[in-house]
Amino acid sequence: MTESGKPILYSYFRSSCSWRVRIALALKSIDYEMIPINLIKDGGQQFSEEFQALNPMKQVPALKIDGITICQSLAIIEYLEETRPTPRLLPQDPKKRALVRMISDLIASGIQPLQNLSVLNQVGQENQLTWAQKVITSGFNALEQILRSTAGKYCVGDEVSMADLCLVPQVANAERFKVDFTPYPTISHINKTLLALEAFQVSHPCRQPDTPPELRA
Amino acid sequence: MTESGKPILYSYFRSSCSWRVRIALALKSIDYEMIPINLIKDGGQQFSEEFQALNPMKQVPALKIDGITICQSLAIIEYLEETRPTPRLLPQDPKKRALVRMISDLIASGIQPLQNLSVLNQVGQENQLTWAQKVITSGFNALEQILRSTAGKYCVGDEVSMADLCLVPQVANAERFKVDFTPYPTISHINKTLLALEAFQVSHPCRQPDTPPELRA
Repeated sequence: MTESGKPILYSYFRSSCSWRVRIALALKSIDYEMIPINLIKDGGQQFSEEFQALNPMKQVPALKIDGITICQSLAIIEYLEETRPTPRLLPQDPKKRALVRMISDLIASGIQPLQNLSVLNQVGQENQLTWAQKVITSGFNALEQILRSTAGKYCVGDEVSMADLCLVPQVANAERFKVDFTPYPTISHINKTLLALEAFQVSHPCRQPDTPPELRA
Repeated sequence: MTESGKPILYSYFRSSCSWRVRIALALKSIDYEMIPINLIKDGGQQFSEEFQALNPMKQVPALKIDGITICQSLAIIEYLEETRPTPRLLPQDPKKRALVRMISDLIASGIQPLQNLSVLNQVGQENQLTWAQKVITSGFNALEQILRSTAGKYCVGDEVSMADLCLVPQVANAERFKVDFTPYPTISHINKTLLALEAFQVSHPCRQPDTPPELRA
């Protein structure tokens, strides 16, 4: 928290996990300050001693709030949901909550970690595109099938939920890796509907304080 | 659910994500039936049409319960926690709950997916051990540092939590990949304390219906 009591988000404009949290903060109208952590510059600012003390995993996002620092985007969102419940990001019905968490985890554990920067650095530059496309299409094949039975307007029914906060940033990653969306009409449609919402627009990577001028929109 | 109304767990003895759920079921004294899905045999039983219809991600665990099927281990555990709250696996205090979820996600998104079977198959047999050791030590370096400030007897204070359900199976994976535990005294100590509990013993990979005779203990 700053002296003014505002939460501080450590974020990188292009980090899909940071974007999830930015959407949650926007939806819940939580005012915050942002400290950009550039994952590329200076060999990666997440590796600085100062940032490692904050998050030993050397990853964004991290959120300082209510006197604690929380890392891991879904843990942050669950905390915001428990302490700032309006508007809710988890349905009331436990079975629907389970579906929301299942879809969120499918993306947060089953897709994103396999195509993040540190893994792509390890597989070597010539294999990066093929690797990323493979793990994303594998996850999206499953996701498309699941969403056909859970979706209404959004991932689970007609209320925006944590699952939607995971979907949109993952679709943006897929687009960067030139994934073919022909097999994913449900994913595409939900993504488009969500991108029309203000909270998804103000939190978009193309509109952050640390977005480079050439990527602004 | 079976006709008798028991939940059905689709599990593989060696899957660390399945083990997390087996511990939760044991701690909460939930009686269940198990259908083993052998991830190796027949080219991987998770790829069968029948199983894919159940979990399009082609992964274990999956739990049929209360008329729905839930996949993703943490989503399953959160559902069990909401519908069968005793004994609790998340603390009452929201800040402590955030720590539990942060540690759980660190393992479930930050370590396990990077060393699971499908990724190791992709990196090639000659690189598997080095790859697995690298991602696990990288995660454990962070985890050890975090646990030094959150742990009591267990990962967060003195109550068994979802974080502990993630820790023990991940330590078992690390041991299989011959990770050096010298830098991880806190992880090692908590793991040992947890393994003395009955719920962690009855759910152990060496004691499952599908454990091969040579790995039984």
